Amino acid sequence: MVTAAHGAGGSASAELIEAVFVDAFRNPALDALGDGAVLPLPSGESLAFSTDSFVVRPLRFPGGSIGDLAVHGTVNDLAMTGARPLWLSAAFVIEEGFPVDELRRVAGDMAEAARAAGVEVVTGDTKVVDTGAADGLIVTTAGVGLVPPGRQLSARRVRPGDRVLVSGTIGEHGMAVMIARGNLAIDAAIRSDTAAVNALVEELLAAAPSTRWLRDPTRGGVGTACNELARDSGLGVLLDECSVPVRPDVRGACELLGIDPLHVANEGRFLAVVPPEQAPAALAALREHPRGRSAAVIGEITEGPAGIVAMRTALGGTRIVDMLVGDPLPRIC
Amino acid sequence: MVTAAHGAGGSASAELIEAVFVDAFRNPALDALGDGAVLPLPSGESLAFSTDSFVVRPLRFPGGSIGDLAVHGTVNDLAMTGARPLWLSAAFVIEEGFPVDELRRVAGDMAEAARAAGVEVVTGDTKVVDTGAADGLIVTTAGVGLVPPGRQLSARRVRPGDRVLVSGTIGEHGMAVMIARGNLAIDAAIRSDTAAVNALVEELLAAAPSTRWLRDPTRGGVGTACNELARDSGLGVLLDECSVPVRPDVRGACELLGIDPLHVANEGRFLAVVPPEQAPAALAALREHPRGRSAAVIGEITEGPAGIVAMRTALGGTRIVDMLVGDPLPRIC
Repeated sequence: MVTAAHGAGGSASAELIEAVFVDAFRNPALDALGDGAVLPLPSGESLAFSTDSFVVRPLRFPGGSIGDLAVHGTVNDLAMTGARPLWLSAAFVIEEGFPVDELRRVAGDMAEAARAAGVEVVTGDTKVVDTGAADGLIVTTAGVGLVPPGRQLSARRVRPGDRVLVSGTIGEHGMAVMIARGNLAIDAAIRSDTAAVNALVEELLAAAPSTRWLRDPTRGGVGTACNELARDSGLGVLLDECSVPVRPDVRGACELLGIDPLHVANEGRFLAVVPPEQAPAALAALREHPRGRSAAVIGEITEGPAGIVAMRTALGGTRIVDMLVGDPLPRIC
Repeated sequence: MVTAAHGAGGSASAELIEAVFVDAFRNPALDALGDGAVLPLPSGESLAFSTDSFVVRPLRFPGGSIGDLAVHGTVNDLAMTGARPLWLSAAFVIEEGFPVDELRRVAGDMAEAARAAGVEVVTGDTKVVDTGAADGLIVTTAGVGLVPPGRQLSARRVRPGDRVLVSGTIGEHGMAVMIARGNLAIDAAIRSDTAAVNALVEELLAAAPSTRWLRDPTRGGVGTACNELARDSGLGVLLDECSVPVRPDVRGACELLGIDPLHVANEGRFLAVVPPEQAPAALAALREHPRGRSAAVIGEITEGPAGIVAMRTALGGTRIVDMLVGDPLPRIC
């Protein structure tokens, strides 16, 4: 039986995807299991292709809406492959009785997000289902882009000594959505970080052309993304707690709820692994961009223990950072 | 408020899409409003891109499943642009409690349908929603393909005197799903026609290289597709009732239910407009293929009345064929 944990983006999700979908669809592009597929066109160009369904509740939250997420999520997945995103599709499953005005607002959010990211929504679909059969609105986007020649981002290229960077403060999206649901006794003014990162990725890759790997830490957060990095590279990841940028209000809300900010979703941040000699230039390039002012080097790649993410804590100890297993925050994207 | 009619694929759908989505996303590729977008790559290649969400109930019906539809629907939309389909994405929204075995069967159906159509599922997404929030399972596919140089299919290329062909008998998919719901007092052994048509389209285009326009008459059926043809070409369409191939059991079920077979969905058929001198070769090529044995010339293009679809009836009269307005068969794909 499928459970909520299967949808949380952590280890249960990975197991379900591996057992059901990778097994059924097995092919070289899919086996990479990254943010999107990179496919060879006859012309020699590399096409990136990615998709995501968005089921977030509520549909609007401080800092964004399902429409923003639907554009940013797919644009960012393409950017993580090294691609320049070009075109999006948008498929809407709408519950009967959904207000047309609200639908128009969502479409408007998507159009504005697409314009800001430099992409176009070029094709779509609309289905209407009975009341109670789609919880209002579900939006699925797919996107295509082109990977410029020479860009090869892969966990297999990661080496011991490489630095791990994050493009900004973490945990804002998941926490903003959770607070927007209104069933917590927390009243912090936390806004989602939802944003397209493709322009920021271009700045990073110009400054650090040997960048090894990129990943947007959405569901499952930075902790899960680092575990995927450790697993896929066969190396260790050592994070430094004091270097991980977390806004005080997000940290406070996490402490109140007993949630690790490393497991909270982000929708406008990315992780980058960069060789040590290019790390200063990479950090400077990120910090120069309005969306990267709080970027930081948060750790480094170690020979081992293979597949393990460890963190030097503020108190001087070391602890293991797990993948997200359960789901503290369901339906955050 | 969004109503079921907005999802039926007829005139209400067209109005909603025009008012909400085309208005928000306005760009040259989207304005074509066909089965998919055709986009220019820097290499000079033309990329086709399309998407569809599938919400069919029940998930399995005689002749197919939601998995078959999810592959065939997007493969066929790409083929209708003249493209050779290459790669698909698949996004799953799964209700908590959905059986993993059933999910595995759907994925298996998709894998087999993809193999048969010569495409690969290369990227995907999985979301899990609360019980009651997605009616079991919703599958959204997107697809990309390449349009070979020189192929230009468009209603604007259609001329008076051109012939309208259909690749096989009509109405089987919609009627099979409706009967599978079990709330009709009909017990006919009607199987869905769901199938990928890309191989058949290649045969047609080889035999009739001046083919003007292709369309798969899914939601809204042949009647709605012909109305779109009349609207987009600014010409008339004159169908011949006696030439439209309908299996006797489908015709009988339609009569019983008071539904016009021209408004029932198909998932493995397409319409083609071909210049008169290439029509015999086109028909012969279709009929030689196992999936095109019941293909027929069902009408022709007329100077006028512009935008109108008329039909010569079996009794010798002429009647207007409307777009589907309401929804006799909701959630058939």
